[in-house]
Amino acid sequence: MLGFQEKYGDYLNKFNGKLDKFCSELTSKPSVLSESMKYSLLNGGKRIRPVLMYAVGDLIGADEEVFSDYALSLELIHTYSLIHDDLPEMDNDDYRRGKLTCHKVFGTGNAVLAGDGLLNTAYSILFNCCKRGREYTDAAGFVCKCAGIGGMIGGQSADLYCENNAISGEEWLEYIVLNKTAKLITAAVAVPPILKGGKYFLEFKQFGEDLGKLFQIVDDILDVQGDFGKLGKTIGKDKEENKLTYVTFYGIDKSRFIADVIYDKCIKILEGIDGDTEFLKQLTEFVRHREV
Amino acid sequence: MLGFQEKYGDYLNKFNGKLDKFCSELTSKPSVLSESMKYSLLNGGKRIRPVLMYAVGDLIGADEEVFSDYALSLELIHTYSLIHDDLPEMDNDDYRRGKLTCHKVFGTGNAVLAGDGLLNTAYSILFNCCKRGREYTDAAGFVCKCAGIGGMIGGQSADLYCENNAISGEEWLEYIVLNKTAKLITAAVAVPPILKGGKYFLEFKQFGEDLGKLFQIVDDILDVQGDFGKLGKTIGKDKEENKLTYVTFYGIDKSRFIADVIYDKCIKILEGIDGDTEFLKQLTEFVRHREV
Repeated sequence: MLGFQEKYGDYLNKFNGKLDKFCSELTSKPSVLSESMKYSLLNGGKRIRPVLMYAVGDLIGADEEVFSDYALSLELIHTYSLIHDDLPEMDNDDYRRGKLTCHKVFGTGNAVLAGDGLLNTAYSILFNCCKRGREYTDAAGFVCKCAGIGGMIGGQSADLYCENNAISGEEWLEYIVLNKTAKLITAAVAVPPILKGGKYFLEFKQFGEDLGKLFQIVDDILDVQGDFGKLGKTIGKDKEENKLTYVTFYGIDKSRFIADVIYDKCIKILEGIDGDTEFLKQLTEFVRHREV
Repeated sequence: MLGFQEKYGDYLNKFNGKLDKFCSELTSKPSVLSESMKYSLLNGGKRIRPVLMYAVGDLIGADEEVFSDYALSLELIHTYSLIHDDLPEMDNDDYRRGKLTCHKVFGTGNAVLAGDGLLNTAYSILFNCCKRGREYTDAAGFVCKCAGIGGMIGGQSADLYCENNAISGEEWLEYIVLNKTAKLITAAVAVPPILKGGKYFLEFKQFGEDLGKLFQIVDDILDVQGDFGKLGKTIGKDKEENKLTYVTFYGIDKSRFIADVIYDKCIKILEGIDGDTEFLKQLTEFVRHREV
């Protein structure tokens, strides 16, 4: 049996092959549009959403040729959200994964359009998937809902709202984390079950929401205790910018405690699912203790 | 038989009823997200795309209950494109239809998200339509393609590229106008034919492209000779900002001549279509001679 690193690498390679092919075929007039989209897509991310989708797809026996299109769309949507989030009047980030952000390289106008282009192209891929039949349409609709105003965009808006108005509170914190971060991770693990007629959909939906929260708490901890050299982004920005995060709200020790509680919850959900969930457990462990 | 104004008003009322219902049900947390979306949606536009879709739908006997969802999505997509286009690093417009633009009222960050929210919600509506079957999926895919990087977004990018690099030329001008303006108008008139199995699809596609061009040429003429009081937007910006338009490229007299040639082409296409095309001819006449 492959170890965790090997298996992650295996899924990553499969997805990166798909992404590389997509990028090599992506052209536009003027070329700056597709170049700015590819610059952000090929920014060396962990690809955690696609890897999750491949792992769950494998586990429940979904067809890779099909779900890989959803994985690609999801990575396009994730990338668009980062580009718009990094803009000067949003999070105003100059670096992402050690490279200059899209608007620093191409200018704000082009970055807005690169994001719009990625979002639109993601849905263009999904409309193609819908031709296969009802469950494919349902899966596409689910991704769209997770990304939308009742999902990720709602979370981004709440994040900005709390920052601009110096608003704090547990309810807002939970809302931001669930929507801004956890919804797209939920989409990643819930699409294969939808494609397979709904088997384990509820379990994976819950797993995605909790894993997404765990991912964000660790992100918040890394913002304080991480290493620019490893993370490739500015450290300590959350507090400076009045951001509502687990660490600014609960402090670092309680955030670590909450992370451990959610970690246990994720493992418990996985134990209720038939099949080999070992890789997903290791991935949860990786999310809990990651340094990048 | 109803006159042109009455018929336009009739379609407009039907669509505005649909839009009002949609807006009354649109909520978000935080509320600023849905408020900023509604502010821009309910900005008193001419609704030319929805009116076109209702008129063509009527003409070829498509089901209003169905195509009205496409009309709504298209207006959401059109509105998102205006919000992002008006941003400071894009066209930098303070006024639209006599009201402050979205980013002037809600700030740039919220305006970016309002646009993202509108685009995503438009596709959420279309994924629902896809459940009805293949031709509905084809129509949704067509709208998405018209809005995408090979369509409207490509046109916006080209517009920005030519402006930023002081590039001129007939080929770029044609590309910008076809994609930035004409593609969404094409979507408006091509969706009902797609829903009806493709009848007159090619004719309406060509009509949409030409009507879209005509619309843009007149827009360019109005930028020079229009009236702020009627148009509700700043006059004379195109030349000042080095924009590549029909008027800055050809001058006003040749632009008028080209408009007349394209007008004739539109009428000719309509004459090749069975059924009562009178309203569409009058609408073409209205687009040619409009002052708003």
